[in-house]
Amino acid sequence: MPTATIITGISELTTNDAELGRLADAALVFEGQRISWVGPAREAPAADHRVDLEGRAVLPGWVDSHTHLVFAGDRTSEFTARMAGRPYTAGGIAETVRATRAADDAELAANLRAHIAEAAAQGTTCVETKTGYGLTVEDELRAARIAANEADEVTYLGAHLVPPEREAEDYLETVRGPMLDAVAPHVSWCDVFCERGAFDAEQSRRVLLAARERGLGLRVHGNQLERGPGVELAVELGAASVDHCTHLGEADIAALAGSGTVATLLPACDLSTRQPLPPARELLDAGATVALASNCNPGSSYTSSMAFCVTTAVLQLRMTVDEAVRAATRGGAEALGRDSGDGAVGVLRPGARADAQALDAPSAAWLAYRPGVPLTHRVWRAGRPVR
Amino acid sequence: MPTATIITGISELTTNDAELGRLADAALVFEGQRISWVGPAREAPAADHRVDLEGRAVLPGWVDSHTHLVFAGDRTSEFTARMAGRPYTAGGIAETVRATRAADDAELAANLRAHIAEAAAQGTTCVETKTGYGLTVEDELRAARIAANEADEVTYLGAHLVPPEREAEDYLETVRGPMLDAVAPHVSWCDVFCERGAFDAEQSRRVLLAARERGLGLRVHGNQLERGPGVELAVELGAASVDHCTHLGEADIAALAGSGTVATLLPACDLSTRQPLPPARELLDAGATVALASNCNPGSSYTSSMAFCVTTAVLQLRMTVDEAVRAATRGGAEALGRDSGDGAVGVLRPGARADAQALDAPSAAWLAYRPGVPLTHRVWRAGRPVR
Ligand SMILES: [Zn+2]
Ligand SMILES: [Zn+2]
Repeated sequence: MPTATIITGISELTTNDAELGRLADAALVFEGQRISWVGPAREAPAADHRVDLEGRAVLPGWVDSHTHLVFAGDRTSEFTARMAGRPYTAGGIAETVRATRAADDAELAANLRAHIAEAAAQGTTCVETKTGYGLTVEDELRAARIAANEADEVTYLGAHLVPPEREAEDYLETVRGPMLDAVAPHVSWCDVFCERGAFDAEQSRRVLLAARERGLGLRVHGNQLERGPGVELAVELGAASVDHCTHLGEADIAALAGSGTVATLLPACDLSTRQPLPPARELLDAGATVALASNCNPGSSYTSSMAFCVTTAVLQLRMTVDEAVRAATRGGAEALGRDSGDGAVGVLRPGARADAQALDAPSAAWLAYRPGVPLTHRVWRAGRPVR
Repeated sequence: MPTATIITGISELTTNDAELGRLADAALVFEGQRISWVGPAREAPAADHRVDLEGRAVLPGWVDSHTHLVFAGDRTSEFTARMAGRPYTAGGIAETVRATRAADDAELAANLRAHIAEAAAQGTTCVETKTGYGLTVEDELRAARIAANEADEVTYLGAHLVPPEREAEDYLETVRGPMLDAVAPHVSWCDVFCERGAFDAEQSRRVLLAARERGLGLRVHGNQLERGPGVELAVELGAASVDHCTHLGEADIAALAGSGTVATLLPACDLSTRQPLPPARELLDAGATVALASNCNPGSSYTSSMAFCVTTAVLQLRMTVDEAVRAATRGGAEALGRDSGDGAVGVLRPGARADAQALDAPSAAWLAYRPGVPLTHRVWRAGRPVR
């Protein structure tokens, strides 16, 4: 039998489980990589080890369902120029493509590991990441392999941008043909950047349909810079998630509310590119499922702080603390199809993966009440302390 | 002779000194509590000890020129209600007044020390704090004494709110008479909350004039919730600073630009109360001196993170990174009259207090480029490591 560890002294436990709800004065038991028990402290079973949190809030580890972490280099100067007034366009991606192609495997893997570790130290215990800075068959395959070694979920994003050396239609045939064939064994998802300056709806659809035939789940980058066709396409194809959702019309909101597609909001990206903020309140009020993610990448959103996303969601997107915390945990899990069954993430219930974080705070509300203050006290991933 | 420590491996050194400017590949020497040398690494003198930062950015420690840290209790439930739509009013202050009066001296001192330590761990090396949750002669005196033991600068804010048990005119006579007499030996500054629901311009002027006669410097809380008379009054009386400046007319901006009064912006407070953000760009373009501060208090802005204020200033107030960093260091020092001479803060030059922070970043731009990521690597206050 695996060793059992009991976590006590929990002032407030957010489980994200419909029956368990939110508990005051709670305890949590880990056995090996799974949660074996959740409930009131006074009913807690015996365990081999004990951690006393002395009155701190516990919640599921963050599920960051949207990052781009297989890259080299940084784009500080582009950021600084943007803050001095230069508008954001998709074109800056090509700079990271150059730096990523030039890096060797060890450098890319080390950079990815460092970013996942940085996120874990801030409470993130499940990370999706993407290819998309290779844009040749070899470089996309390399990125997929490196990502598969380190991340929980890997997405193929050959359709990130047409690389400067290729012609669009010809490149698309590569993306949906030999590149997809090479990458598919290493990834679970396929994504497209459906936006002016990247790929239009028809091009995006062709890539996604080819990926669906290969058994991959679908994701879409859509409606980041204008009211484009990305949301409509994602809902049409039953994508698991459509990400950004910054510029939405009423029809987009209604389509999302009537679908199983998660609306994944990336508010740190919107702030970092001086875009408007997404209509989170309208999405929630319409009944859509909302996730929050970092979009960590060196161009448009170089943060690994899910707490910053939650803080922003409460203070500026008019989400309640409960809605924002749920979106950054269970919402991300839903966007990745990992919210149920054995080893589920984003929830704290028996059978779920033992991914949890304790805050230096009596309640999760302090994530928004104390903006910017580093509140991460302890973090466990699959039952092991990572902070 | 005091021991000398040389800090090397500085990729970017922000000095805030007109002649020294910003240096790449720099070094810094501390002798005792002062800086003794600043310059290019290749010209650095010998020293007793050496710290190698291996390519990190260094800047002056944050100068947080506006906090309210002599308090007990918290107001999480008021915050949560506000995020669910209840508007912010000055009235919530009375709840903290009750909790603060009920706490003993040791509890108040410990809470103040914990908050200053929390801020120091995030790079804050000079802190102003205020009375204003006592509102009786005895309780204000007690707060002033406790604050004087722990903070760099202490401000008398008897005119924070009329306490529920007192009548306004009668209370004001206490504030400008016996309360001022009791508190004055322990403080350098007098402040008033000049806002609808607190004190009007005429009442505020009476308090400030009495304080000026006692030799105290003047500060004003103004224009937080509407275009009130606070800025005009602060400029009229030559106050060192007018704080909030959220709602400004063109005449307010022109008055500030033509004065020696610093416009201290508190963007974390504006976000936490769902107010608009202040017109920082307009103030800077007009030539006003701008400071950024946390306004850390349990009601309207419970953050100690100056990095969050800087990030917000760049991403949302359209300040450049250089302007925001300067406002959160030298700007705060100017608001406190501590920007020049022996032991100056907010600047890194020979003779200044050895207050500095090193970031886990190659440049200060990462404070905005990587929102929410805890970047504080090392902090020194008066030459001693505090992190
Ligand atoms: Zn993305
Ligand atoms: Zn204040």
